[in-house]
Formats: sequence, C-alpha cells, structure tokens
Amino acid sequence: MLDKVIRELRSFEGIKRKNAIGPFVRKFVDHPDNVIASFGEDAAVIEVGEEILLLSADGIWSKLMEADPRWAGYCSILVNVHDIAGMGGNPVGLVDICTIGNQEIYDDITEGMATALKKLDVPMIGGHFNPDSQQSSIDVAILGKAEREEVIYSDRAEVGDNIIVGIDLDGRVHPSFDLNWDTTTMKESEEVRKGLNSMKRLGEKGLVNSGKDISNPGLIGTTGMLLEFSKKGGLIDLEEIPTPDDISFIEWLKMYPGVGFTVTASEENTSDVLEEFKDSGLTGKVIGEVSEDRKLNLRYEGREKTLFDFETEGITGL
Amino acid sequence: MLDKVIRELRSFEGIKRKNAIGPFVRKFVDHPDNVIASFGEDAAVIEVGEEILLLSADGIWSKLMEADPRWAGYCSILVNVHDIAGMGGNPVGLVDICTIGNQEIYDDITEGMATALKKLDVPMIGGHFNPDSQQSSIDVAILGKAEREEVIYSDRAEVGDNIIVGIDLDGRVHPSFDLNWDTTTMKESEEVRKGLNSMKRLGEKGLVNSGKDISNPGLIGTTGMLLEFSKKGGLIDLEEIPTPDDISFIEWLKMYPGVGFTVTASEENTSDVLEEFKDSGLTGKVIGEVSEDRKLNLRYEGREKTLFDFETEGITGL
Repeated sequence: MLDKVIRELRSFEGIKRKNAIGPFVRKFVDHPDNVIASFGEDAAVIEVGEEILLLSADGIWSKLMEADPRWAGYCSILVNVHDIAGMGGNPVGLVDICTIGNQEIYDDITEGMATALKKLDVPMIGGHFNPDSQQSSIDVAILGKAEREEVIYSDRAEVGDNIIVGIDLDGRVHPSFDLNWDTTTMKESEEVRKGLNSMKRLGEKGLVNSGKDISNPGLIGTTGMLLEFSKKGGLIDLEEIPTPDDISFIEWLKMYPGVGFTVTASEENTSDVLEEFKDSGLTGKVIGEVSEDRKLNLRYEGREKTLFDFETEGITGL
Repeated sequence: MLDKVIRELRSFEGIKRKNAIGPFVRKFVDHPDNVIASFGEDAAVIEVGEEILLLSADGIWSKLMEADPRWAGYCSILVNVHDIAGMGGNPVGLVDICTIGNQEIYDDITEGMATALKKLDVPMIGGHFNPDSQQSSIDVAILGKAEREEVIYSDRAEVGDNIIVGIDLDGRVHPSFDLNWDTTTMKESEEVRKGLNSMKRLGEKGLVNSGKDISNPGLIGTTGMLLEFSKKGGLIDLEEIPTPDDISFIEWLKMYPGVGFTVTASEENTSDVLEEFKDSGLTGKVIGEVSEDRKLNLRYEGREKTLFDFETEGITGL
C-alpha cells in the first residue's frame, strides 16, 4: 500500500501541475508593505485602511468544464468561497470572467453558478463576459475580509504541531467528475456554511498555527504544500486518514473535497480543534506531525517512506 | 460619412458583443446592502467597514491573445487598472488566472504582464495558474479603493450635461492588433499614470456627474453604454471628436485607447474638466450633450441620425 500511494501521488496530475507555480510567481514578487501575504496562500492578505482584505482567484480546470458545465459553474463559486474560508475569513463578493462557446453551455454554467451563489449566500457583483469564444471557461475572483489577528496562514506550521484534517465525509464521488468529492449539492445552505465556517472559528479562538483548504492536490498533496510553504516537513500516518466508505483509498487521496481543511496545531490545542471541527459537522482527525527536516514522509503499518523531499523536489517551489 | 459611421458602428463586434451582458447579469442581481454598485460599472463598489472598495475583472479577447501573447499580457494589466481609474479610484492589487498552452506563450504573457505591472506600479498578489491547457488565456481581477464621495459612476449622467472625452492622442495603432490605440508602451510610467489619474482628480473635485473608461466598444460605443445605463440619450457631434492624425475616422471610433475616458459634466464645470484633462496630458473635448430621450444621435455637417434607440435596442440591456 505505502509504495502504491507514493507512486500514485508522485504521478498525480493534481499535484504535479502545481510545480509550475514557483517559476511563475518569482516574476511577480515585488510587493508594497500593505500586502501582508500573497502567492502560496489560498488568498492574498492586504491591509486597506483599517480593514484586512482577502483577494483570491480560481479558474476551473478545462477537464471539468468539458465534463459538466453546470458542475463547473457551481464549482467556480464553491472553490473561491473555500479559499476565503481556508484563510479564516468571510466572503464579501465575487467577480467572474465567463467565456462561452454556445447557448447550451451558457445556460448550464450560469445555472450552476446561481445555485452555488444562493447556497453559499455570496453575491456576484461584476465581471466580464466573452460571448464569442471557441472554448468555454469560467474564472472567478473573490474578495473577502478577516480580522487581523485571526487570519490562518499556510506558512506558519511549527515543528511538533499535530497535522489535523477537518473534512466532510458525508458525500459522493460526483457523477460527472471522479476527482470531486461532492458534499454540498445535497445539503442545505446552513449546513454547508457551518462546515466552511469552521476555519473562521478556529481563527477566532487562535487554535491553529497554520491551515489551508484542501483543493486539487488532494488531502496529502495540500498538506504537503502547507509544509513546503512553512519550510518544514512532516510524517503522515495513512491509517489515520479519515476516509468515506465505498471509495478506494488511492481514489480518496486524489479527491477535491466539497468542504475540507488541513491545519496544524500544538498538542495543547489539538482536542479543541477536533471539537470545533466536530461542532461544524466535519470529521476531525490527527493524521500526523510536523517535523524539522524538510521531507514529507508517509507511514503505513509501521513502515515509513518519503513522498516528497522539499530540499530537492518541491510541490510548488515556493 | 454619417451613414457610414452608423453602419460601421452598428455592425462593430466590439459593441455588438456587449448585447450579451444584460441577460447574463439578470441572473445575478440579488445583492446585500453593502454592494453600492455592481454590473454596468467599470468596477463594483462595495462598502467594507470604513472603506469603499472597487472590484473588477477583465478577460483578454481571444483574438488579441492569438495575435500577440506579450501584448495580451500587457493589456490584461492595463485594462484592469483602467477600470479602477475610470471609477476615480486607486488600484490596490491584482490577481490573475493564467492558462497556458506552451512555454513560448508563457514567457511572452508573463513578460508582458511584468512590464505593465512595473509601468503602472501595481502589485500582482496572487492567482491561479493552469499550466496544461490547449488554449491560452489570461484573466485578471483587480481590487481598488476610493473615497465614498469621489467615486465616478456610469449611471448618473444628467440631462443637459456636456459629454466630454479626455483621451491620449499621442500614440500608434498597435502593430499586432489594429483595434488597440497604444499610448503607453512608449511612455514613462509617470506620464502614463498622470493620464490615468485624471479621473481621480475629477472625482476629488466633484466636477463630473458620470464617467467611464473607454474600452472595447470604442469612444462612441462606450459613451453609448454610459447613456444607456444612465437611462438618458445624447447627441454626439462627429466633427468635435478629437482624432489623431494619420488614422481613418472609422478606424479611430473602434479603437480601445491606452488611456481614455468619457464623462458628463454640467456646463458650469465643463471648463474645469477640460483643464484637468489638459493638465493630465490628455486631450479634452466637448463632443456632445446628454438628452432626455433615450436615443444616441450622431450629427455630422448639420445632419442628425440615430445610432441607437435604447428603448428598442440597448447596447448592454442594462
């Protein structure tokens, strides 16, 4: 199992495609003082007057658009709100750039978007519409806000922290796209938002040192990005990873979950973190520990093996 | 000439493609009270705490990307900063969604973006990178800020206002894309930003009732969008439109200028508006007047003809 997981994750496109971030970002690193955080975080953190604002943008993978435009439209909203949630913030509003090949796709994308906007209670407040393209795409950016002392960053994991996931296991592999673990379309707005708000509550209570929303690279891949960005390493125990029934473990590790976060917290705060995830309707579980050596190791049945050595092969290169 | 202008503008893709906005927007109109303005403006206006924020997004037309990826990357920044400038605001930061087909296009787009970021002195603070698509695209969103009483809206033209353009005539048709009037690549940062800041100064002094940045629909098309959104009409005198030498008039009317704005102001404030544009290095000119009937009429050599009747054929349908 251990060798298979490592082989599968190393060749997983959802992780590999993050390699391109580092070289891209290095072209744009010159920031004024009011930019508190930028690339590498789920959202940039900017100080404007007295306010701490979050700004993020997410495109929808072309594979998803080809598979199901309605679900792509829905996800374009969900993933952006998820980014703001992952930082411990509140969403304020979205803008979109919608590029459409034909009327049928248009109807599907906008219906998916409208459904998600309603469920997540966030307004679409502007954007740009390209009615005349060959290929359809939906890109969305989001503005959020947060309290200065409550923002949860990805680069602040501390050696000895427990690695904890908080994730909604109650869902289904989306019928249109087998890399999406859908836990929101079948639930009421209040329930979905309660799960998303778990990070905000963790931030308010100062319970975690770092955190990130689980996205395309999956549960382990996203945790790896957090550890790399924190200039740390870690050991993840595969047997501790909470997994839904009726899904293969490898498949699960590649899922983009509807609502899921990976955080690190001190031993002292760990039980409170788990309690908070539980109160939010998520399954919280300690899955490993942050280490000083810059390697992400996996353990299974007492055996350990390195998945990524960040000294030699980063996920993002950040 | 008058008939030719009307025929050409009515069939101009840069204007026609705006028809799709109205039906799109009507799916997303449910906004909370802190959203002061949204669709139809160059940027949404949102109140967050004590701050007035601007949020906008712009995609680059696929035709431009096909013609010249470097220029497309440059424009992706310029048009977003132009949006914030058009509202009388200051840019704070940008996020991008960059989708890349191959390494050569990647180098060109990012080089164009980096050049524009430096010239316009705005930071790129985050985004999303798709390294593995068939078709390349660059979408950018921008956060800006403004003072509550100084924001310039598109929907507030008043009957009897003069219609005034402030535009940089000192430029060239871009060699890669004949719908772009490039006035920025050959100029120093300070000069470009001075022109862009003209609107901020007009807002500070409260000199205009409405305004908009001139974009893809061109000088008359953009003015038409402003009048339609203000639920007014207007008469534009073709002979008064400032035009560079060595370019055909029809061609000029379809240009996306590097720096150009259309505003409306009372007769009383008109000379101050013209002065402000001049001080900003732009050519300011009264080109017409706002009227009550919801028609955009054009005049040439004493003859008048309707270009758009907003009662029956809107540009955006907003």
